[in-house]
Amino acid sequence: MGNIFEQDLDRNLANHQPLTPLSYLERAARVYPGRTAIIHGSQKTDYGTFYRRTRQLASALAHKGIGKGDTITVMLSNTPPMLEAHFGVPMTKAVLHSLNTRLDPAIIAFQLDHAETKIAIVDTEFSKVFNEALKLAKVKPIVIDFVDTEYAEDAPHAQGPRIGELDYEAFVQSGDPDYLWSMPDDEWDAITLNYTSGTTGNPKGVVYHHRGAALMGYGNIVASGLGRYPVYLWTLPMFHCNGWCFPWTLALQFGTHVCLRWVRAKPIYDAIADHGVTHLCGAPIVMSTLINAAESDKRTFPQTVSFNTAAASPPESILAGMAEAGFEVTHLYGLTETYGPAVVNEWQDEWNLLSPSSQAVKKSRQGVRYTALENLAVLDPETMEPMPADGETIGEVMFRGNIVMKGYLKNRQASDEAFAGGWFHSGDLGVTYPDGYIQLKDRSKDIIISGGENISSIEVEDALYKFPGVGACAVVARLDEKWGETPLAFVEMKQGCTATAEQLMAHCKGLLASYKCPRHVVFEEIPKTSTGKIQKFELRKRAREIGDL
Amino acid sequence: MGNIFEQDLDRNLANHQPLTPLSYLERAARVYPGRTAIIHGSQKTDYGTFYRRTRQLASALAHKGIGKGDTITVMLSNTPPMLEAHFGVPMTKAVLHSLNTRLDPAIIAFQLDHAETKIAIVDTEFSKVFNEALKLAKVKPIVIDFVDTEYAEDAPHAQGPRIGELDYEAFVQSGDPDYLWSMPDDEWDAITLNYTSGTTGNPKGVVYHHRGAALMGYGNIVASGLGRYPVYLWTLPMFHCNGWCFPWTLALQFGTHVCLRWVRAKPIYDAIADHGVTHLCGAPIVMSTLINAAESDKRTFPQTVSFNTAAASPPESILAGMAEAGFEVTHLYGLTETYGPAVVNEWQDEWNLLSPSSQAVKKSRQGVRYTALENLAVLDPETMEPMPADGETIGEVMFRGNIVMKGYLKNRQASDEAFAGGWFHSGDLGVTYPDGYIQLKDRSKDIIISGGENISSIEVEDALYKFPGVGACAVVARLDEKWGETPLAFVEMKQGCTATAEQLMAHCKGLLASYKCPRHVVFEEIPKTSTGKIQKFELRKRAREIGDL
Repeated sequence: MGNIFEQDLDRNLANHQPLTPLSYLERAARVYPGRTAIIHGSQKTDYGTFYRRTRQLASALAHKGIGKGDTITVMLSNTPPMLEAHFGVPMTKAVLHSLNTRLDPAIIAFQLDHAETKIAIVDTEFSKVFNEALKLAKVKPIVIDFVDTEYAEDAPHAQGPRIGELDYEAFVQSGDPDYLWSMPDDEWDAITLNYTSGTTGNPKGVVYHHRGAALMGYGNIVASGLGRYPVYLWTLPMFHCNGWCFPWTLALQFGTHVCLRWVRAKPIYDAIADHGVTHLCGAPIVMSTLINAAESDKRTFPQTVSFNTAAASPPESILAGMAEAGFEVTHLYGLTETYGPAVVNEWQDEWNLLSPSSQAVKKSRQGVRYTALENLAVLDPETMEPMPADGETIGEVMFRGNIVMKGYLKNRQASDEAFAGGWFHSGDLGVTYPDGYIQLKDRSKDIIISGGENISSIEVEDALYKFPGVGACAVVARLDEKWGETPLAFVEMKQGCTATAEQLMAHCKGLLASYKCPRHVVFEEIPKTSTGKIQKFELRKRAREIGDL
Repeated sequence: MGNIFEQDLDRNLANHQPLTPLSYLERAARVYPGRTAIIHGSQKTDYGTFYRRTRQLASALAHKGIGKGDTITVMLSNTPPMLEAHFGVPMTKAVLHSLNTRLDPAIIAFQLDHAETKIAIVDTEFSKVFNEALKLAKVKPIVIDFVDTEYAEDAPHAQGPRIGELDYEAFVQSGDPDYLWSMPDDEWDAITLNYTSGTTGNPKGVVYHHRGAALMGYGNIVASGLGRYPVYLWTLPMFHCNGWCFPWTLALQFGTHVCLRWVRAKPIYDAIADHGVTHLCGAPIVMSTLINAAESDKRTFPQTVSFNTAAASPPESILAGMAEAGFEVTHLYGLTETYGPAVVNEWQDEWNLLSPSSQAVKKSRQGVRYTALENLAVLDPETMEPMPADGETIGEVMFRGNIVMKGYLKNRQASDEAFAGGWFHSGDLGVTYPDGYIQLKDRSKDIIISGGENISSIEVEDALYKFPGVGACAVVARLDEKWGETPLAFVEMKQGCTATAEQLMAHCKGLLASYKCPRHVVFEEIPKTSTGKIQKFELRKRAREIGDL
């Protein structure tokens, strides 16, 4: 007989449609065409217009021959075209690639070539650097200038020249507002591309799919307590993990996007007070900006504003200052590979009874999985067994679920390594507490932060390997009272070769900026996996054991 | 070259997991083990215990050999075992089949046989009727008695005898609370089975899948504005479309289920006042019960309670009474085939400025699609073209998306008909207004409601067909001032045969209860499709045109 629930009960067009965030905008525009979708300076755009413009953008792109598998690169601030691109580009089945606006020409050129960019939309704030990148790149994309008419008069720097053959506004206007976009062929199809900000070597292109972007919308709603009609201020760059997928998320709840080009205290407070902002996201630096703002820049407001932060845990003083200023801080954690935040410090009611310092300790933990992430665990990366939930035993934080990337573009090896054993390996080290909350105990594996500067351990290792006789080496962070962290090198010399710590440090100084050079060198056998991969994990433990040097 | 976004970017365990509501409970229990999940009379169950008990239930079922493709039937009220079954049964990969507790033995027996039930869990409130059904059924399921220790002292009727070989509580306790349940093999796998309440012929078994149940969770959150920690009162039967999927939905927001065996005013008001209920769902009759309650049964409460209603649009007087009593009414619409509600009357702010009667008119419209439904349209069922959005042109309401059933169990023909042309045909007739909201203009195709009694048009047609010489016939509703609707028969006699309206009506009276017999008979050619199917759609139009008879 077989399973009766598998007979004549197949997928068809009526009962199975690809998950995609594109349909969220279609719905919002149909239900609330007159509700404000975007505020940008003096401009207000309603949902009907927003949707029509995204269709115009898609139509204009399609007229240029853009379609499935093509890459559209944007170098844009948190402005309306960035929001339009998040819908208009995938409406053509193409993929949106957002450039970090702080990148230098060489990295931009690499990304353009690697992504095989067909069209680039560039804000003239960044036209000079982009133009430099074009000279270095092999690809020759069509460039479309976006000249922001709302560019602030007190801007920290002027707009650059036009460099493209097309103007963004004219390009959009050339499109058909009734363009019949189609759903993705499959929810597994790519929707966006975001490069990791590797500080050495080539960045990796993280590919998101429609399924994950759609589910992140729901995940964000639950994690951030996004009710109907949120007003969301864009302090988080949209080029960063697609703004943690909030460009799509907001349409689910008919929310209003408040654009913001630069993170400066006065415009933020003005937006909160004038537009009734309910939610914003950002790195801890945004909180400092708000708390340390000049009194004349601050505004009072009646609502409690939800502030989602990630990256580092907010210290007690900042939390207190934020609460006083009318913000409720939620601590999130994730990576580019997990569509932004995939872990939330879900706040327990009874923690409100704790002292402020104990609350800060609770708040510093990364927390529990998003609803849209199916599994989160701290595992032994060798055995893939879970570490004991004792709050002490360190393992690697791993993710499994539908808000984990498709993989790295054109980099099968990196994808295979990242997904080894059926889990996404974050490279972050952490612990699980008895209550199931996780906490990071080490930074991302390749970064050492010394005196506020990022040092790539790989870059230092590359320098060390250039010293004759170095057989294996690994550089990890060592806690340092003054500098926070300093690079500590473990070195294994080839048989018959010798070197002193001083020789190696001098060698590095000839190749690297001084702050990047190892402060200490330990000569010993380096632990490796059965496949010969260095166990940095073990070395970080070893670095803690070593103590004074 | 091909599409670079389709190379080496495949699904794997790390980035693709089946969508299922089961993981919602696992998360809730991990994050808030001590938060109250279920209140039932004097019992309170926290999330940790709820999750452990579902695993015990799953374990005990697995010990009985239950696994993928097996059916577990439950005949339960809105009590904790019903909630436990919604998770515990699918944790074994088996399918949960919920019986409407009002059914008679013959229909129950049919369902047991059709579903091939292996185990049945039966509340002793229904043990007598279930026992009758067992005598009629061919299958011989293991029967587990649930004897509710919270059975109210003022119950409208007594508990029946034990009829099973096992006791529910002992059965659960025999299971392993650490049972390692597994995710579904595929999100398309069946999770539940709900039979439509066809009043004639055999009911159809609507199969839900894990994907749809998971997405309904998110859809409900958005449609009902379910924030964190909702308190949900079970006035809606959980056997009805799995309680519109709220048994699963609540876990997403760490909500509390307040059980309720019978819809009676006093316990409802008590629950609202004592447990801080925030949400409840139910048919219009529940609203009448609340409004018309004796003053001594009413309670005051500080919160505004969200009341979701479906089926019929609430009249102005009821809406006014509900508002006065502290309820905010949302009008939803859907079918068993769409996991319950898939359409929501999304309320526009500006409607609050309308007169109460105009608000009632707006509220009476069924509305717009759920976020989790990808498409909703009023189409011409012949051409499958959309009807003009003029609020007047009637077509068939059709659904397309991920919260449409897998299909009808062991009924390929019915599934094929329901999904013809890539849309789910609801059988309901409606219009689209210029603002995109839909409104039903006719009831489900086969039901005529006369004097509050449901009449199956098919049952009447079956009777008519037994009259010699009837070639084709169709019965539709005709508006009637006194009865609401009465059955109107269109009859086409075979060539050379004749009959009078009186003869046909007398014939029907010999076969049917009097209220079911046609009040009028019209002899004329019956419009049919190219494949010979009667166009009831056209006949309903014709019935309106005919006017006085």
